[in-house]
Amino acid sequence: MTAMTADHTAFARNQWYVAAWSSEVGRELLGRTVLGEPLALYRTQAGEPVVLADRCVHRRYPLSASGLDGDRVVCGYHGFTYDTTGTCVYVPGQKRVPRTARVSSYPVAEVDAMVWVWIGDPELADADVIPRAPHLAEDGWVTVRGMEPIDADYGLLVDNLMDLSHETYLHGGYIGTPEVAETPITTEVDEAAGIVRVSRHMADAECPPFYARSTGIEGRIQRLQDIEYHAPCLYLLHSRISPSGADSPVFRTEITYAITPSAPGKVYDFWAVSRNFAVDDHEVTVFLRDFNHTVVMQDVDALNLLQRSLNTEPAGYQELSINIDTGGLAARRILAKLAAG
Amino acid sequence: MTAMTADHTAFARNQWYVAAWSSEVGRELLGRTVLGEPLALYRTQAGEPVVLADRCVHRRYPLSASGLDGDRVVCGYHGFTYDTTGTCVYVPGQKRVPRTARVSSYPVAEVDAMVWVWIGDPELADADVIPRAPHLAEDGWVTVRGMEPIDADYGLLVDNLMDLSHETYLHGGYIGTPEVAETPITTEVDEAAGIVRVSRHMADAECPPFYARSTGIEGRIQRLQDIEYHAPCLYLLHSRISPSGADSPVFRTEITYAITPSAPGKVYDFWAVSRNFAVDDHEVTVFLRDFNHTVVMQDVDALNLLQRSLNTEPAGYQELSINIDTGGLAARRILAKLAAG
Amino acid sequence: MTAMTADHTAFARNQWYVAAWSSEVGRELLGRTVLGEPLALYRTQAGEPVVLADRCVHRRYPLSASGLDGDRVVCGYHGFTYDTTGTCVYVPGQKRVPRTARVSSYPVAEVDAMVWVWIGDPELADADVIPRAPHLAEDGWVTVRGMEPIDADYGLLVDNLMDLSHETYLHGGYIGTPEVAETPITTEVDEAAGIVRVSRHMADAECPPFYARSTGIEGRIQRLQDIEYHAPCLYLLHSRISPSGADSPVFRTEITYAITPSAPGKVYDFWAVSRNFAVDDHEVTVFLRDFNHTVVMQDVDALNLLQRSLNTEPAGYQELSINIDTGGLAARRILAKLAAG
Repeated sequence: MTAMTADHTAFARNQWYVAAWSSEVGRELLGRTVLGEPLALYRTQAGEPVVLADRCVHRRYPLSASGLDGDRVVCGYHGFTYDTTGTCVYVPGQKRVPRTARVSSYPVAEVDAMVWVWIGDPELADADVIPRAPHLAEDGWVTVRGMEPIDADYGLLVDNLMDLSHETYLHGGYIGTPEVAETPITTEVDEAAGIVRVSRHMADAECPPFYARSTGIEGRIQRLQDIEYHAPCLYLLHSRISPSGADSPVFRTEITYAITPSAPGKVYDFWAVSRNFAVDDHEVTVFLRDFNHTVVMQDVDALNLLQRSLNTEPAGYQELSINIDTGGLAARRILAKLAAG
Repeated sequence: MTAMTADHTAFARNQWYVAAWSSEVGRELLGRTVLGEPLALYRTQAGEPVVLADRCVHRRYPLSASGLDGDRVVCGYHGFTYDTTGTCVYVPGQKRVPRTARVSSYPVAEVDAMVWVWIGDPELADADVIPRAPHLAEDGWVTVRGMEPIDADYGLLVDNLMDLSHETYLHGGYIGTPEVAETPITTEVDEAAGIVRVSRHMADAECPPFYARSTGIEGRIQRLQDIEYHAPCLYLLHSRISPSGADSPVFRTEITYAITPSAPGKVYDFWAVSRNFAVDDHEVTVFLRDFNHTVVMQDVDALNLLQRSLNTEPAGYQELSINIDTGGLAARRILAKLAAG
Repeated sequence: MTAMTADHTAFARNQWYVAAWSSEVGRELLGRTVLGEPLALYRTQAGEPVVLADRCVHRRYPLSASGLDGDRVVCGYHGFTYDTTGTCVYVPGQKRVPRTARVSSYPVAEVDAMVWVWIGDPELADADVIPRAPHLAEDGWVTVRGMEPIDADYGLLVDNLMDLSHETYLHGGYIGTPEVAETPITTEVDEAAGIVRVSRHMADAECPPFYARSTGIEGRIQRLQDIEYHAPCLYLLHSRISPSGADSPVFRTEITYAITPSAPGKVYDFWAVSRNFAVDDHEVTVFLRDFNHTVVMQDVDALNLLQRSLNTEPAGYQELSINIDTGGLAARRILAKLAAG
């Protein structure tokens, strides 16, 4: 048994995190909190994403409750106005703008239809290290997506995603079948790169509704689940499905999560399902969007409940880990190392 | 004046408490928290009540959000499966079940249509000492019942029930009349047995609607209230009503409360009204159920309000006790002794 | 930059505060909390306002949840009964009333249709020093009024009202126009008397809907705003509007606020708009009541949001003050001095 000793999983600051889907960032200010830092996001007229600290220098009113004037943010309380670098360029009632008047701006990168932000030391921000999920933006793929805030430690969401045996119980009748819980996993850990891979290959399994209705397969399937977690934020589940039997076509589905700690005990759950088959079938798109939202909400409800339960536990409560937790425990070790710096 | 010094009334652990009405415990898991301990209750296929700790050993998911497979509990998150003793008999993805995998099971006894649980040292659990309320289950009696959770210290509910003078003010027009507040009480305390008796005998009193509509009495009544409180949990109010005048028939009503501390500042208020007259009159049953529920909710609202008010008071606030509080103060002393002991 | 170091603006106890509009105090008990003290307000049969501590001496049940018997308050729980001085004159079940049974009564004064209460040392309560707002009660004036509780430090409401440049941004299209933010202010501080005056005289300005619809003016206006803040509670905004051009009639509107700290992080926002023109025009009355309520709710929403934001800030967060804040900073200094004693 191992004891959870911290109140919450420590934050790794010098890392890239998804603050929003690209489609969420536009010409209205969007408020998000990442690693406890309140952020205001918007897009310039030229289309560039901007991330500023979400607190006016004057009286700390949230800029996300404000408006845009061209590429500038005009505070909704007293009109302090900021350019894209966070420099204050106008204050009411006087000509002189105090030299110290500025809010932080954060390094930002738009990659694979996600807006990534860097909260730590800006000198260390290198967008080239952002892990990739090209299927989210490439031609030939269709993606449904959403974001759900969860009132739970972000470590609980990492746990949840690293161990898919829960599909059988929490998502039975949706994406889970008995074989998921029964089939052993293999785990590969690259501590240096901060990557954990967990694979579960089911040679002959029931086809859950998620795949039956999107692929049209009737009968049993070969089902391959290959998780590739790039700590701390990006989680990819490479899913391959084919009808049981030789020489069958393979259906690839890419399930993507971005796991962004919002504040202690709060996490943003960005989710997406991408496919490169039946791309013109609108019915399949609608089905996957609604169905996967339902599945995500099962996780959201369970993690909210779990966190409320943990909040009533005495400090240092016990857990009991088994083989299925190998990937999750490796992820915890890597997160602790990243947080320690 | 006496000062309340503790934040909340201390819990007496080595005692029996009502966790549920028998009718609440069946083939779906029921979550309750008693003395701060989260519990999952269910009934085996053979009808035996089972009480397990409500936290899976794996990641502490509440078992009460889980399902049953025969007599076993299957955790709703990853499928860890427990038998009625709390021993884990299945885990996903591997054959071997860790030897240490078990959750606590609690001594349980089903007496008088109530499921009693023992939270303290199981060696000391003796079901023979459970105080009795036979009218709740015996032939010849009809009972209406319910349970209301209150966000208040359980001592406030004990106070409330030990001093019925509040009927005149809080329940005026329902069960209260001027005579209740005006008539002095007699109090008898058996500290060794942990029993407090408070009696108020009104020789000539108004008949409140509660009794007028259930008995059909018109005009004034003799009204006898005999409280018998078995600390900490069981409260019996033996009520006898008869029309004023000699040789009148006596109507007996047994009002039962089980007062179960759920957590600091939270209490379960189990209530029941039993009668051995008009037992086949469904209208009387419906009337008493609805009417008494209304009366209970007056208490619930008042105690929620009182606790919210007390929460804003500085520590060590003053109370002023008078004769009517004799029973309640005796109850407090006994509860303190039970908690210490 | 200056740092806010306190969690909340300190309370000045030896001061008069508005606890209610006169019209709110009648023959039903009203519960209010002023400077953290729970109060029960009512009016005697002769019409005198009474303010008692809102906690029964017996078990601390709120008297504001109780009823009146003539001029006496009868506790809604067990019937302890108090006269207008707070002396207990009846307890249930016994003839003798304990000598120590009394609740505090507070000095009260009804001035200008407001019920003022004194929370501090009663020896120091002198109603003659209550600042006046005669337009609230005088013949020839019509007033619309209301009260909104805000979950914000009362200092945030003082800030808000002392700097009207926020009208342009928070209340644009209602009472704000570009000229408010652009026009410099003059500030006068009488530290001894605890009065701050802030004036903004706009020679040629847009007429916002608030004034266009109440006065019937079309076209541009001269707009004079003269704030007179009597710390800690009473805020008067003397507003004079006239059509641009010589010899135009002047429309006077008196905007009154009473700023009453309820508890740390909570404030009562009493607001009123009085006019001495179009006094018989019911449509103007309805318009001003609804329109100003909308404007007040814009402030309420903004301050609730601001306080929630500040609650997530580390202690000692920075502010940046400019010329428009001169009045607000003077008010803060005076409030700190009054609180210190």
